[in-house]
Amino acid sequence: MAIATPQGYRALGETTVAAFLARLPEIRDRLGGEPAAWRVREVGDGNLNLVFLVEGPEGSVCVKQALPYVRLVGESWPLGLERARFEWEALLVEHRLAPGRVPEPLHFDETLYAIVMERLAPHIIMRKGMIAATVYPNFAEQIAEFMANTLYFTSDLGMPAAQKKKLLERFAPNVELCKITEDLIFTDPYMEHERNRWTSPQLDDAARAIREDLPLKQAVALLKLKFLCEAQALVHGDLHTGSIMVTATDTRVIDPEFAFLGPIGFDVGKLMGNLLMSCASQPGHERRPGERADYQAWILRTLQELWNGFEQRFLELWRRHPEGDAFPRAHFLGPEGERALEAARRRYMRQLFEDSLGYAGTSMIRRTLGLAHNADMETIADPDRRAACERRNLALARELIVEARQFADIAAVADRARIVLAG
Amino acid sequence: MAIATPQGYRALGETTVAAFLARLPEIRDRLGGEPAAWRVREVGDGNLNLVFLVEGPEGSVCVKQALPYVRLVGESWPLGLERARFEWEALLVEHRLAPGRVPEPLHFDETLYAIVMERLAPHIIMRKGMIAATVYPNFAEQIAEFMANTLYFTSDLGMPAAQKKKLLERFAPNVELCKITEDLIFTDPYMEHERNRWTSPQLDDAARAIREDLPLKQAVALLKLKFLCEAQALVHGDLHTGSIMVTATDTRVIDPEFAFLGPIGFDVGKLMGNLLMSCASQPGHERRPGERADYQAWILRTLQELWNGFEQRFLELWRRHPEGDAFPRAHFLGPEGERALEAARRRYMRQLFEDSLGYAGTSMIRRTLGLAHNADMETIADPDRRAACERRNLALARELIVEARQFADIAAVADRARIVLAG
Repeated sequence: MAIATPQGYRALGETTVAAFLARLPEIRDRLGGEPAAWRVREVGDGNLNLVFLVEGPEGSVCVKQALPYVRLVGESWPLGLERARFEWEALLVEHRLAPGRVPEPLHFDETLYAIVMERLAPHIIMRKGMIAATVYPNFAEQIAEFMANTLYFTSDLGMPAAQKKKLLERFAPNVELCKITEDLIFTDPYMEHERNRWTSPQLDDAARAIREDLPLKQAVALLKLKFLCEAQALVHGDLHTGSIMVTATDTRVIDPEFAFLGPIGFDVGKLMGNLLMSCASQPGHERRPGERADYQAWILRTLQELWNGFEQRFLELWRRHPEGDAFPRAHFLGPEGERALEAARRRYMRQLFEDSLGYAGTSMIRRTLGLAHNADMETIADPDRRAACERRNLALARELIVEARQFADIAAVADRARIVLAG
Repeated sequence: MAIATPQGYRALGETTVAAFLARLPEIRDRLGGEPAAWRVREVGDGNLNLVFLVEGPEGSVCVKQALPYVRLVGESWPLGLERARFEWEALLVEHRLAPGRVPEPLHFDETLYAIVMERLAPHIIMRKGMIAATVYPNFAEQIAEFMANTLYFTSDLGMPAAQKKKLLERFAPNVELCKITEDLIFTDPYMEHERNRWTSPQLDDAARAIREDLPLKQAVALLKLKFLCEAQALVHGDLHTGSIMVTATDTRVIDPEFAFLGPIGFDVGKLMGNLLMSCASQPGHERRPGERADYQAWILRTLQELWNGFEQRFLELWRRHPEGDAFPRAHFLGPEGERALEAARRRYMRQLFEDSLGYAGTSMIRRTLGLAHNADMETIADPDRRAACERRNLALARELIVEARQFADIAAVADRARIVLAG
């Protein structure tokens, strides 16, 4: 291997995974039978890592191993193995705060930078389900619960400063993965850069308009600044429909390797942006006009339920568990004090809402004009049809970023999306 | 000693300091002669540490050693020795970014938690000079330079994220000293607490009014929240006139043990608040009415020069050294881009201005109603005269916090101070 790696590290292969797991008694028990009988498949379709599914007679596990480079690009783009440890530690926090909403963490190997965790089955990546127009009736509620629990209890509202600063210290070194976000989301799409690509020539004018849009770039600069310095809570850092696995009734969040102390709106907004982008893509998947109208309506209802559910749960946690050091309870005693505190809570949530809209917009732009694109759009084979969807997506994204303060509530966002994204 | 300390740690005394320094060749050379001839005096008048001045035939040094408890209170309030290391590292950063504005760092002893640094002479603590109505014509310019340089170059405007996150990791564990600020500045004065004290009974009504002032407490809660989670730059953390030593022409900043990644306005505002509080105290020191009017006018001119100088230098650094990752230069090319960026810079400075006014106000309140008071006021022997000054100080402080957005500029603050603080 051209890239230097720590002593003992080696990339696992389908033939070596079983030997690795056989040395772990709890995992061995879980799988059952003899290691030689375990079935191993490498299924990593992400950009960065190896992922193995291992099935034994009695159970199965998933093994995720970091590679010392970006898998999507190759060894020319090295990437530190330490990210696996950040992922493991974030997974433990999420598992504690939102049990049942992440795969159960089973083991971390310090030498191989490999995480062993529950294998999710029959879950699929939610993005694939949405391309197939699958409705997930429990998704909004379950993901709202995940976001509210993980974000509230790692914020200064729900966690004492002494604990929160330990998280800050622990995740501050996750510099490389933050830098990927800083560059690919907040920087490259708004300038000429060799990593950018878009449906060309159809969107050449739209890409140029965005590069020349100074009010947009001013607003994006503020979102980037907030990403760089607002340590609001331990965020997942990459919460989109490709980091969520679902069944008809269950929702699980995976892949928290981008975790760091950042703005709450970054998680909420990235997910909202991915829902809106899926909505924008739906006309491109229609075999006859209007075929996906009901599904688009479901997405926009889900968007509203997601925000409203998140807000309601977050506020409820704040009222019931004011265990952080912000907003000292002793300052807001009695009915008048409670009213004043509730007003402060509402203003806090309003700011989160506007932040979320901004981050939603940046996600929608980067997946249209930047390096990494979404299968939602990429699977639309006809470039003219795809470009039409992407152009509407860009128009809505710009509004969310520049006009965030003008949206009265999430229903107003859904109303606007209905108009702008109409096929 | 009742409190457990690391192996090898012992509190230094006037008789043991020389032996400690004699083992350091560079310090020995600097002092000259034989250690037995060095003259040692313990002069710590702060709340937390031992401070020794050591004079030899050829030169002198200052030794500052952390005690494992709050000196002001005693062993009943333990405090970690690690703060000496945070102070040392912050001092190194400040010395690099603002050379000549801090004492020269000479040595850090890892076992004794002792800093050896340049002895400042004939400098005195600025607060003492201001109680004596001494004018410092260079102060505003020199402190503006210190603040602009240290704060700009450790912010996301002037420092790349990878470096800034190292500072974040390094200073996140400075939890105990941050907690002192969180409690004593942002929490205790706004509730009943045994640590609080004020000039009583004269200010009993004013203290109660502040405890019951919900709009004020809402605004203070936001300032506390920002202190808890906005990692804007490496702040000194305790920048008041008791942490500044001056001569007629020279300004030096000492004691950065509270350093952490926090809001820029906390440093600027704490200093502004201390200037305004000194201004408020001046009538209490008059032997005849109006005797200190000219000095009050100097303070308010200094306040304006300080803010204006800080703003101008900070903006100039931003224009010339955009070495951070925020506001990517490539997004704002050409004359139109530069105009848009300059507008963004102005909005950023306006936010810093409002933050600073808020933090100024919280400093003025905590030093009137909380645990630690200022000699500016405490040296006014007559409690009625003192209370009259303190009452005006509280009135202005509240306006700065609640009405920060209403002040057009620093001149408007000075105008208002002139009216509210008039004796």
